[in-house]
Amino acid sequence: MATARGCVFCAIVAGEAPAHRVHDGAACVAFLDTRPVFPGHVLVVPREHHETLLDLPPEAVTALFLTARAVCAAVGEVLGAEGTFVGMNNTISQSVPHAHVHVVPRRKGDGLRGFFWPRMKYGSDAQAAELAKRLGDAMPPV
Amino acid sequence: MATARGCVFCAIVAGEAPAHRVHDGAACVAFLDTRPVFPGHVLVVPREHHETLLDLPPEAVTALFLTARAVCAAVGEVLGAEGTFVGMNNTISQSVPHAHVHVVPRRKGDGLRGFFWPRMKYGSDAQAAELAKRLGDAMPPV
Repeated sequence: MATARGCVFCAIVAGEAPAHRVHDGAACVAFLDTRPVFPGHVLVVPREHHETLLDLPPEAVTALFLTARAVCAAVGEVLGAEGTFVGMNNTISQSVPHAHVHVVPRRKGDGLRGFFWPRMKYGSDAQAAELAKRLGDAMPPV
Repeated sequence: MATARGCVFCAIVAGEAPAHRVHDGAACVAFLDTRPVFPGHVLVVPREHHETLLDLPPEAVTALFLTARAVCAAVGEVLGAEGTFVGMNNTISQSVPHAHVHVVPRRKGDGLRGFFWPRMKYGSDAQAAELAKRLGDAMPPV
């Protein structure tokens, strides 16, 4: 199992750093974020050390998001959450360089306005069409 | 293939509504968000109509996030993105009730401060421990 020296999430996975664990699976561990947006804000991490989504092997991607999905079910049942935010920062805004998925319980009127920022528009339809083509051409096989 | 009448994403999947497609796979379709946070902001949707992450069959979860991962690779290559935000709103703040994953290209100094909102603290360690246990007990098998 790949671990990284000095990685706080590897230490939590190994049981060497404290965390309030929610799930301890073969592929992933889930625990409470210590500074939650709301109570029940959970982080799901692969046991193996990988930095970002791009670095994860396919089976780890599957395990990570199936675990996140199960956490969504739990926050609905236990906290009565009406919805969830499931999100992952890769490299930029990523506080710990060990891949992790945030699951945040949401409710109507919880005071958050989604996760989003100002939106723009494409200069022209042709510009958008060209960008879509370039991105599609650059995608590795799925 | 399950589709929902009046669903704009089902219409895009079926080719009945316009979109700048990035990817047209067996399980998922990816296209440019028309009001991007940044150029290259892509939405990945399952072909089948399911409302939220909780509603998706396991194989659709896998396909959705493996496709999102491939989009992350493409925005790195084509746009020189240094990172990505990968996120999903379920029910609350979900503008279209057809499950979709946002992939937003990120750069250092891009002016966004992560996706997050004010953080709180748990009242006590015991309170956090109890909540973690309840959530873990309520998780369906992964």
